[in-house]
Amino acid sequence: MGIGQREDLLHAFDRVRRRSLEIAAPLSSEDCCAQSMPDASPVKWHLAHTTWFFETFILEAYEPGFAPFHPAFRVLFNSYYNGIGAKHPRPQRGLLTRPALDEVRAYRQDVDGRVARLLAAGAGLEVARLLELGLQHEQQHQELMLTDLKHLLAQNPLYPAYSPQEMEAGMAPEPTAWIEYDGGLAEIGYGGSGFCFCFDNELPRHRTYVAPFELASRLVTNGEYLEFIRAGGYRDPSLWLAEGWDRVCSGDILHPLYWIASDDDGAWNEFTLHGVQALDPARPVTHVSLYEADAYARWRGARLPTEAEWEFAARQASLAGGALHPEAAEGDGLLQMFGACWQWTSSSYAPYPGYAPAAGAIGEYNGKFMVNQYVLRGSSCATPDGHARASYRNFFPAGARWQFTGIRLAR
Amino acid sequence: MGIGQREDLLHAFDRVRRRSLEIAAPLSSEDCCAQSMPDASPVKWHLAHTTWFFETFILEAYEPGFAPFHPAFRVLFNSYYNGIGAKHPRPQRGLLTRPALDEVRAYRQDVDGRVARLLAAGAGLEVARLLELGLQHEQQHQELMLTDLKHLLAQNPLYPAYSPQEMEAGMAPEPTAWIEYDGGLAEIGYGGSGFCFCFDNELPRHRTYVAPFELASRLVTNGEYLEFIRAGGYRDPSLWLAEGWDRVCSGDILHPLYWIASDDDGAWNEFTLHGVQALDPARPVTHVSLYEADAYARWRGARLPTEAEWEFAARQASLAGGALHPEAAEGDGLLQMFGACWQWTSSSYAPYPGYAPAAGAIGEYNGKFMVNQYVLRGSSCATPDGHARASYRNFFPAGARWQFTGIRLAR
Amino acid sequence: MGIGQREDLLHAFDRVRRRSLEIAAPLSSEDCCAQSMPDASPVKWHLAHTTWFFETFILEAYEPGFAPFHPAFRVLFNSYYNGIGAKHPRPQRGLLTRPALDEVRAYRQDVDGRVARLLAAGAGLEVARLLELGLQHEQQHQELMLTDLKHLLAQNPLYPAYSPQEMEAGMAPEPTAWIEYDGGLAEIGYGGSGFCFCFDNELPRHRTYVAPFELASRLVTNGEYLEFIRAGGYRDPSLWLAEGWDRVCSGDILHPLYWIASDDDGAWNEFTLHGVQALDPARPVTHVSLYEADAYARWRGARLPTEAEWEFAARQASLAGGALHPEAAEGDGLLQMFGACWQWTSSSYAPYPGYAPAAGAIGEYNGKFMVNQYVLRGSSCATPDGHARASYRNFFPAGARWQFTGIRLAR
Amino acid sequence: MGIGQREDLLHAFDRVRRRSLEIAAPLSSEDCCAQSMPDASPVKWHLAHTTWFFETFILEAYEPGFAPFHPAFRVLFNSYYNGIGAKHPRPQRGLLTRPALDEVRAYRQDVDGRVARLLAAGAGLEVARLLELGLQHEQQHQELMLTDLKHLLAQNPLYPAYSPQEMEAGMAPEPTAWIEYDGGLAEIGYGGSGFCFCFDNELPRHRTYVAPFELASRLVTNGEYLEFIRAGGYRDPSLWLAEGWDRVCSGDILHPLYWIASDDDGAWNEFTLHGVQALDPARPVTHVSLYEADAYARWRGARLPTEAEWEFAARQASLAGGALHPEAAEGDGLLQMFGACWQWTSSSYAPYPGYAPAAGAIGEYNGKFMVNQYVLRGSSCATPDGHARASYRNFFPAGARWQFTGIRLAR
Repeated sequence: MGIGQREDLLHAFDRVRRRSLEIAAPLSSEDCCAQSMPDASPVKWHLAHTTWFFETFILEAYEPGFAPFHPAFRVLFNSYYNGIGAKHPRPQRGLLTRPALDEVRAYRQDVDGRVARLLAAGAGLEVARLLELGLQHEQQHQELMLTDLKHLLAQNPLYPAYSPQEMEAGMAPEPTAWIEYDGGLAEIGYGGSGFCFCFDNELPRHRTYVAPFELASRLVTNGEYLEFIRAGGYRDPSLWLAEGWDRVCSGDILHPLYWIASDDDGAWNEFTLHGVQALDPARPVTHVSLYEADAYARWRGARLPTEAEWEFAARQASLAGGALHPEAAEGDGLLQMFGACWQWTSSSYAPYPGYAPAAGAIGEYNGKFMVNQYVLRGSSCATPDGHARASYRNFFPAGARWQFTGIRLAR
Repeated sequence: MGIGQREDLLHAFDRVRRRSLEIAAPLSSEDCCAQSMPDASPVKWHLAHTTWFFETFILEAYEPGFAPFHPAFRVLFNSYYNGIGAKHPRPQRGLLTRPALDEVRAYRQDVDGRVARLLAAGAGLEVARLLELGLQHEQQHQELMLTDLKHLLAQNPLYPAYSPQEMEAGMAPEPTAWIEYDGGLAEIGYGGSGFCFCFDNELPRHRTYVAPFELASRLVTNGEYLEFIRAGGYRDPSLWLAEGWDRVCSGDILHPLYWIASDDDGAWNEFTLHGVQALDPARPVTHVSLYEADAYARWRGARLPTEAEWEFAARQASLAGGALHPEAAEGDGLLQMFGACWQWTSSSYAPYPGYAPAAGAIGEYNGKFMVNQYVLRGSSCATPDGHARASYRNFFPAGARWQFTGIRLAR
Repeated sequence: MGIGQREDLLHAFDRVRRRSLEIAAPLSSEDCCAQSMPDASPVKWHLAHTTWFFETFILEAYEPGFAPFHPAFRVLFNSYYNGIGAKHPRPQRGLLTRPALDEVRAYRQDVDGRVARLLAAGAGLEVARLLELGLQHEQQHQELMLTDLKHLLAQNPLYPAYSPQEMEAGMAPEPTAWIEYDGGLAEIGYGGSGFCFCFDNELPRHRTYVAPFELASRLVTNGEYLEFIRAGGYRDPSLWLAEGWDRVCSGDILHPLYWIASDDDGAWNEFTLHGVQALDPARPVTHVSLYEADAYARWRGARLPTEAEWEFAARQASLAGGALHPEAAEGDGLLQMFGACWQWTSSSYAPYPGYAPAAGAIGEYNGKFMVNQYVLRGSSCATPDGHARASYRNFFPAGARWQFTGIRLAR
Repeated sequence: MGIGQREDLLHAFDRVRRRSLEIAAPLSSEDCCAQSMPDASPVKWHLAHTTWFFETFILEAYEPGFAPFHPAFRVLFNSYYNGIGAKHPRPQRGLLTRPALDEVRAYRQDVDGRVARLLAAGAGLEVARLLELGLQHEQQHQELMLTDLKHLLAQNPLYPAYSPQEMEAGMAPEPTAWIEYDGGLAEIGYGGSGFCFCFDNELPRHRTYVAPFELASRLVTNGEYLEFIRAGGYRDPSLWLAEGWDRVCSGDILHPLYWIASDDDGAWNEFTLHGVQALDPARPVTHVSLYEADAYARWRGARLPTEAEWEFAARQASLAGGALHPEAAEGDGLLQMFGACWQWTSSSYAPYPGYAPAAGAIGEYNGKFMVNQYVLRGSSCATPDGHARASYRNFFPAGARWQFTGIRLAR
């Protein structure tokens, strides 16, 4: 169900907008300004860009007598919408020490007030749809705020914690069970009614043939992944896609991102948003690339699921989540489909049969990225509450590791 | 049917091996030595590597008292088989002025003689299978010899012709017709018997649901593509995948590769293996990337076919080919499925359900490349006779343009 | 005369250390954290590194019971002293959002107090010498704080001013006069007594033969440089060193850094620490590379001076300076030798005959950079008061433009 | 004395032109076509470019009814003369498989004949001067043909020899003696009469003050350099210029270029134009960068000479040379000033006081390279007979190693 249908639109707007500020609250203005790689953006930029989205797609179109909060922001905080015009170069987002964090907060407040007034004046269906999209968009950026920030803090030899806290070791989960599915001719894609929300890339719902398959009952754990490492998994080219092996040979990929080998006893630590922690064998392995997920699966005599298989199985799974690091699996049945780690599939990100993006700049949201990316399914510990669903299609390049990505096996 | 089943094995071996030398015959030893980009290899290297394939996978395994022709060749002419050991760095293939072209010819003769003796002594089924694979492999390299050479010659401001000849303008083809297909639950993948040949990536044959679709009766022509250019197709970001637009903006992609704008009257020429020719509006556009094919299709309100759609339709198509540049379409019905240009599909190169590569180094042939590449279907004017079939899966990165790639629309 | 000899050592220490904080005072913590290119460092990093210098070379060596303020700072704020150990990678200085600016201020306060106590306890000559070196070192970084910050602010499309203020157009200066010097066998290098300060690269004073020469009475102005631009200076390869021309062709060098062409009327603006200002034809051109200085000189039928010529002439020049942008020349005689722009010489940065760096890590200060850099003489508007002298040798790569570099002609 | 004054101009022309072909004679057309790095050119390109020089600067200007041999050659074989027009991109010289080597030979023959006819018809002084320059230019390229070819062959794992032959170990040379020079006010630069030849960068002869100095009697040997390596010279940053140390750390510089460590016993071999040879401790170390020469000198408590010191001492040295690898020193006195290795000096390549290049495109010969290069003095084993003199200024970037560069110490 869409955010705006579950509650009064204005309440939803207020709740989601406040959440972004809560995420930034423990951070200094310095923390919010820096950019650790072109793929990641500063927290301040996220705060401004999500505001830009409402200003550009709602206020500019529907507010009587619209005037921009600041004329330069249209360019500064445009991410990739060519239909809107010029963009500030992505790798230089971290150089924007001005506007200051406080000015961005004022920007948010101004736009929030104007949107509220617009809604109070009785906005129509189109505004409601755009508002819903803007909130979903902001929730996506809320997850990125945490993962981008994690990447930044990890570059600092002091390894500062976003939320200092000692993590407790999880209970050893049950061994993986293989859950069988009959498959057959299945309907895939979002099937909710018009009052609910989905992104355009989940449409149209369409028929796909799914051969019988089995899915692992839970995600691969750190402990299981360590067996792969200790068995020489990162030294055996026969396990790897050629592109992945090139990255292993060039030293880009040596172990999951954020793992830190202790010099003394060879024990592994892991940098988390709670700071450096001893690697917990019970928790799911995370921050792996598709290359690593694929190599691990091959080593286990298994494979990654397709996105159709995953969605076929996910219809019965329960939603969960809301933490700063994935938790260990508990219980039995099909576990951790949501709320722990995004799960790499073997499916490249492609349009569903009959897919058509929206008209205008807003149509640049999804469709133009449908090449050389791979679909991840589920959700992660950092996905905002209420943002996940079985038909959701997340996507990243095969080498991306700074998201909370994990591995679920299929065969 | 496999090459080795259609004729006596030894005859096939002799015929295919001779053909490689014929392709090289018009070239100087200098032409055969140079490498114009890391993706392309020198003709001499192709001649040696295809020989290395027979020496390594057949003679080394089956010849009694095997000794290598030259111990260093095992490394020099290994393309990418980690299971065999070290490889000479790919970007440095053009620096191998030694062995000389004549030594490589002697290498071919030596290995050919030894393979012939092995066959004469009565080789078993396994040798026959490897020989068939080696011949198919050599045919793939025969096409690459021509496309790699074309790329090299195109770097030379003298624009030398491989085969000097004035090309005749084709007759204007019939307008594109849309051929309808019902689709349904279809069997996709190679379906021949064990006596015939296919690559492992065409297996297993499996069921797929194909929604009803229409396919264009012929390839997009130069004339039609010029309309796209003149309508500003290369200046409108809304038509392009984001990655493709980045390449347009950086100046990498401005028009099909090998097109040359005449300064005087704005008329286009095209560099071909027959030298520079006036661009023929009747012939199919070729040397385009997936990005361009996709943008063109979007501009026409159409899309690229999936590989399943293509294969579904191709079952009835007739084979053709054997030229140094694609010919204009003639006649009606479903034309140019084979023998003109490889046709970009929207399908990323992925394993079929249940796919398993062969054991050992020979298993590195296909599977490890199944990421970040896109499937091309059909065959081109440069594909050797007898090498094409409906289930054949060619694959290249989305930006590759130096193959004879073309566009067939679907909707 | 050394800083520490002109006034009580402790007063000097207090004065110089306070000055660094004054420079940072108008800036937000965000402004102080960002790094706009590998060559430039964040202001916060400068504040910490200059403190590290005193902590490492004085406290660590001379403070009884020394314990570091923070063990990680030894690595974090080491610039390039291999003798001290590991260094944080230079291009990643901008990612150090921690320690926060306030923590760095606390670091300064702590070290300042401990140095003061050490001095109060009666430090010997060696400590006094290191303290003097540390203060001179900090003054160098004070200039870099301004130039690095200017580079950062210039990347921001908002063009924020460090010190907002409208600059007044200067009076047109007198035409350049050529001042004649007889030359002869001259003593070059620092000639002060042991109580005064110079860097090791100004020693030993040595004999050099200087042929008769003429020096321009003042620096080249923006107005004169505009004539060069308008005459096609940036389009004529015959004026340029080959390396410089390559940079022109690649688009790296199109006009002095920070010049901004107005779209409307072709008028030039200039980004300064006072914000964007109309280009003042009376002020000296600044932020030019050696390539541009050399090309301009060639176009005028002149050349750049050697460092020996410059120093020969500078003996009588008066010191000046202390502004955020170079002022126009006023008066006659030899003007602007100090306090406006550093002046490119044609002399590569090389050791004087008999040069020997200090022993130990402190010896890495100058000597190891004596290759592929060029000497600049004089001082700039941003050079701290009391830091300049006739024998001072500043040095940067030929392409560096973010310092206040200018052009004085010779012939 | 100029080549053309020592003998009849036509004889000189014939002799030098023939020598280039002799150097190429043992090579295949493949060997002559490949380019192993942008800094090096194919032998065929050298053969053509030296011919282009005569065609462009003599025939085009002085031959009645001049028509080019081939219109495209003006661009293809222009090295860097912007005054002439466009140039084929330097890194792509190895892709010019056409014109074939035989066509380039025909080009040489044609131009040679036309130049000879021009001379026979009685050319004036200007033609004689240009011819002399063209011959000196060709001699420079003769040395490059050997060093560029050596670099190419060294990339080939087969290590082919240009001139296969076992090198005999040299007799251990006398220990280095330090030869004292008084220095004083000296005349530096070419001092010959107008009938003799020098490059413009050797002019004008001018006065320089040279402090008293000592020069090593011979070059540093492989044996001595091995002591440096074994003492950890490549692991001690305190010995290195910062730029050099960066290259050591990045793995670019680990030992002299072309040295090959034997796996078995740690013994060193050296790739030479005679093939791989055991490293001869008696011969001079060669193929070192300025960084290595400087670090070695520092380790020995010495330094590199300035070019003025070198020239001051070289006035009495005897010319020698003519081999494919430097020979060991024999005898006593000042040895190996010429004919073994080019000797790095600490002097950056800069114009002499009053230097003025020739007018027009020919003036691009030397002057525009006078930045970020260092002067080498003497000559090498590969320098053509009659090409060396005491005032000769060779120059390369500090990191260049593919020339026959060596080390002479000073102090």
